[in-house]
Amino acid sequence: QNQIHKGRCFCADKGVDVVLRKNIEKFEIIPSSPSCGKQEIIVTLKNGAGQRCLNPESLFTKNIIERIENKTRSAQ
Amino acid sequence: QNQIHKGRCFCADKGVDVVLRKNIEKFEIIPSSPSCGKQEIIVTLKNGAGQRCLNPESLFTKNIIERIENKTRSAQ
Repeated sequence: QNQIHKGRCFCADKGVDVVLRKNIEKFEIIPSSPSCGKQEIIVTLKNGAGQRCLNPESLFTKNIIERIENKTRSAQ
Repeated sequence: QNQIHKGRCFCADKGVDVVLRKNIEKFEIIPSSPSCGKQEIIVTLKNGAGQRCLNPESLFTKNIIERIENKTRSAQ
């Protein structure tokens, strides 16, 4: 139920620590703003399995965002 | 016109090198997959101004993804 809006943030709670990486269809990253003071990371799962907020404090989240950054940095 | 699908990728071309950072509502990152062999980065602009594919090779894109990574890494 972590997709329910709370105040002006998208994620109502910390979100999940882990999802199966192969099930991730895409990431959405919402920068912090006046209406929600924290950066939010949401994954959409394959096969219509819905969305999950990722806990930004989990090691899984930090690692997977680092992978994205590595891929971008090496793009040429 | 870079939102038009080409093959199975979302972005038809390289995408834009820069967008105004304050106009970014959210980022979408689609990992590479069998249907599209490259990671795609799409921004949604505020005020219904639509979506833009970001050129993964541009310095702007690399820097802004690094900012996201830094924010995630320091989340606690």
